[in-house]
Amino acid sequence: MARIVQKYGGTSVGDVERIKNVAGRIKLVRDAGNEVVIVVSARAGVTNELIARAKALCANPSERELDQLLAVGEQETIALTAMALHGIGVDAVSYTGAQAGIFTDKGYTKAKIKTINPKPVEKDLKAGRVVIVAGFQGIDEEGQITTLGRGGSDLTAIALAAALQADKCEIYTDVDGVYTADPRVVKTARKLDEISYDEMLELASAGSKVMQSRSVEFAKKYGVVFEVRSSFNQNPGTLVKEEVAYMEKVVVRGVAVDKEQAKIVVSNIPDKPGSAAKVFRALADAGIVVDMIVQNIGRSGVANLTFTVPQGDKAKAVKALGPVLKGIGGGEVTVLEQIAKVSVVGVGMKTHSGVAATLFQALASGDINIELISTSEIKISVIIALDKADEAARLAHAAFDLDKI
Amino acid sequence: MARIVQKYGGTSVGDVERIKNVAGRIKLVRDAGNEVVIVVSARAGVTNELIARAKALCANPSERELDQLLAVGEQETIALTAMALHGIGVDAVSYTGAQAGIFTDKGYTKAKIKTINPKPVEKDLKAGRVVIVAGFQGIDEEGQITTLGRGGSDLTAIALAAALQADKCEIYTDVDGVYTADPRVVKTARKLDEISYDEMLELASAGSKVMQSRSVEFAKKYGVVFEVRSSFNQNPGTLVKEEVAYMEKVVVRGVAVDKEQAKIVVSNIPDKPGSAAKVFRALADAGIVVDMIVQNIGRSGVANLTFTVPQGDKAKAVKALGPVLKGIGGGEVTVLEQIAKVSVVGVGMKTHSGVAATLFQALASGDINIELISTSEIKISVIIALDKADEAARLAHAAFDLDKI
Repeated sequence: MARIVQKYGGTSVGDVERIKNVAGRIKLVRDAGNEVVIVVSARAGVTNELIARAKALCANPSERELDQLLAVGEQETIALTAMALHGIGVDAVSYTGAQAGIFTDKGYTKAKIKTINPKPVEKDLKAGRVVIVAGFQGIDEEGQITTLGRGGSDLTAIALAAALQADKCEIYTDVDGVYTADPRVVKTARKLDEISYDEMLELASAGSKVMQSRSVEFAKKYGVVFEVRSSFNQNPGTLVKEEVAYMEKVVVRGVAVDKEQAKIVVSNIPDKPGSAAKVFRALADAGIVVDMIVQNIGRSGVANLTFTVPQGDKAKAVKALGPVLKGIGGGEVTVLEQIAKVSVVGVGMKTHSGVAATLFQALASGDINIELISTSEIKISVIIALDKADEAARLAHAAFDLDKI
Repeated sequence: MARIVQKYGGTSVGDVERIKNVAGRIKLVRDAGNEVVIVVSARAGVTNELIARAKALCANPSERELDQLLAVGEQETIALTAMALHGIGVDAVSYTGAQAGIFTDKGYTKAKIKTINPKPVEKDLKAGRVVIVAGFQGIDEEGQITTLGRGGSDLTAIALAAALQADKCEIYTDVDGVYTADPRVVKTARKLDEISYDEMLELASAGSKVMQSRSVEFAKKYGVVFEVRSSFNQNPGTLVKEEVAYMEKVVVRGVAVDKEQAKIVVSNIPDKPGSAAKVFRALADAGIVVDMIVQNIGRSGVANLTFTVPQGDKAKAVKALGPVLKGIGGGEVTVLEQIAKVSVVGVGMKTHSGVAATLFQALASGDINIELISTSEIKISVIIALDKADEAARLAHAAFDLDKI
């Protein structure tokens, strides 16, 4: 007997038929003698419908009311999933985030989990029930409903797996696992059997949309091994875990493309100590995640700062930069949107030289100009023109023999 | 400054435009300097959609999961209503049943309110906020979500008005108030300015669908005066309150038709003491509300029992009767569905004789046969053929001069 946490995303529970399919899968796991905890998202589309109604009523809805609103999506799914299990003779009980003891801070729309009280869920598990928990939501200590932000249901599953000391954690989605590249772009992309937390994190920040970074970070911090797999077939997925020795033999594990970034150039900043710090402090205070920072000194006494931000944050970034540039005595802001970030990721590159050279050579062979470069121990990212992104991914994928491993 | 509780039903908040309309009405009341508490139902249709999904997954859904499911309808509306108010510059905050401190017993799908803790709502009222409370739902002492059953949002409003010692309680619906008869059937029906709790109760039990009995009973018990009125115009509605002397001068206040009853005849029961008690105990244990009981002794030693039940309960009633008839040694069950109950209601009839005679004469003038009669202090009901029901209502309405008062 194992204790298993499974998470099903919005597509997997999109309608009554799909919920029945999920219930059937759960029954198999339950009947094999396991203790089963299920985390579900809102049915696909529900969250967007709710947000559309909210925006129709108020241009800038209160975050507290947004959370109050959005939490209903998952609450619907938990009850329906429990009923689907009852319908096929499986004892099951649903829990909202609050009922499951998922306590968060007060950060509406992007709350952080502070503690989980595993006792109520454990009691029902011991009584032989499948426990269905609403993903994405929690409660603060005053009883206010909070939501965890994008990828919140994955986070709920991984946090519950940690709190319940589960033997397995399975994240079901509409793809078979983590691929060496997006199979829609790179036809020769292959599914990976295993990937390390760090590689998964770099892939996530590089724009691979399988999971949000924070869930992977949480799993890494608490040592939760999880598997990403499809709810539409029985194929094995990709296991995400601490890196193991043999992983390092492979230089590059995957190629990711992110087309949702904008490049911001702040030029002609007075080159004084602390100028850059003030710029990035202002962006951080505005809640903007900045990626790929490059500074270079231009003509005497002035510097240029270049960085990327998510496209959705570009207006907020420009607004935040206004006062700070005035304060430090100058600087002009230019925003460039027609760009993409292409990254190669792999723990193996830590000990292999020449990865950058191989990547740059591959891009050069396609006549692709590199606008910006940033590197980490296990990732190299380049900014290139948006319309060259898919071609760049194919070239890089081939250059690192990812279709052959 | 007055403290006002308003309740808006599902039709009034059916879509984004209607929620905006409701928000505009609330703003007027708020801007006049009042403290305002709003109770809302689920958007029209939402509850039925949720139930349809539930039934598609499980023939007989668990009541606990049904409540978990149905509570989302109101939770959506409270958040949207708060946002609509924010959108027009009105400070507002939404409360689920749990957050509003509405504690109930554990009777899932038909929970009874045990206590309301008014403090959180009062705190927000004193801070100048409009408070939006989810109707129909509460929480038990273990933190389980419960719902109050049909008409539950009205009950929430009236119970909150009592707990908050509100000056006014207004139940907004899609009709202008309480009429002397259904205006779709009786063209000369008039809206009543006032009606007593008891008359309203008898009208409700007689099939007038304006409100459920339990809300009126609660209002009567706690002396909550409330007004039934339309959210689609500014017409005054009908005030429901303790009867006052002048009400008694009017003999009959209204005519109601109930087409949702079935007549059950249990014939040839051994006429022994306790037989009838056993029959009705079995029906009560099955949760069936029985109306209009008539017993008559037929041929020597056997009795016939006739009564009406809601059509939805007829199968359950027949099932419940099987074992009990076996136990008392015989009896056959016949179910008749093509019937209707027509009732005339009025506190005045307590002190006026001849009401029954006038009613029976009116029906006779239309050649309508009476199958069953039952009377209370302020109501006379008759069972007649279903296809004569509308004509009976018109004849009774005219006979008691209800179009002339």
